[in-house]
Amino acid sequence: MSVKHFQDLPLEPVAAGEKTSKQVLISSEEGPNFAMRRFVIEAGGFMPLHTNSVEHEQFCIGGEAEVVIGEELVTVKKNDVVFIPANVPHSYRTTSSEAFEFLCLVPNQEDVIDIKE
Amino acid sequence: MSVKHFQDLPLEPVAAGEKTSKQVLISSEEGPNFAMRRFVIEAGGFMPLHTNSVEHEQFCIGGEAEVVIGEELVTVKKNDVVFIPANVPHSYRTTSSEAFEFLCLVPNQEDVIDIKE
Repeated sequence: MSVKHFQDLPLEPVAAGEKTSKQVLISSEEGPNFAMRRFVIEAGGFMPLHTNSVEHEQFCIGGEAEVVIGEELVTVKKNDVVFIPANVPHSYRTTSSEAFEFLCLVPNQEDVIDIKE
Repeated sequence: MSVKHFQDLPLEPVAAGEKTSKQVLISSEEGPNFAMRRFVIEAGGFMPLHTNSVEHEQFCIGGEAEVVIGEELVTVKKNDVVFIPANVPHSYRTTSSEAFEFLCLVPNQEDVIDIKE
């Protein structure tokens, strides 16, 4: 089917994060070159500093977070666009009373994850 | 810069569409594997039936449209996910009083566009 409705897709906890879950919107089997996922970090939740061996193209669809990207600390909110190059350490901490939600797209390549803290 | 604010980026008209504009959020120079764009089709606007030689991974961020994908006619609204395989004819027609807005991601490959109508 060409169109999927958000609420019909499973949301699974992310072990490395706190109050963090992930939903695969377009899998690496469906998309020939890259995959689309949605992450939800509830109020008070976070994802620790880590690197991925693939880049991330992200788009915030709700909430607000403090995001570390390399040496930068930035505030990300709805409609912001984030690019995280491969192997650059990054972390997320929700700062809003609502969940921080974002799309995260990655190429169909092996992703080696290294958690720093 | 790692974070871009939506409203700071230029929005340019799409010649093939009616009341349609496009914003490059992450270019093919910035993203090593794929690009992120945002399309806005105002109320009463459309994009005609066409094919692309690359696939589309799309996410609706506002409004509602009737979308033709191959033999299907589907309604797409906020938070819906759309996958359009390479070379499958598709068109868009806004059906809401607000603009139909969606992200459209494409691989960094040559895109041959063929307008059908």
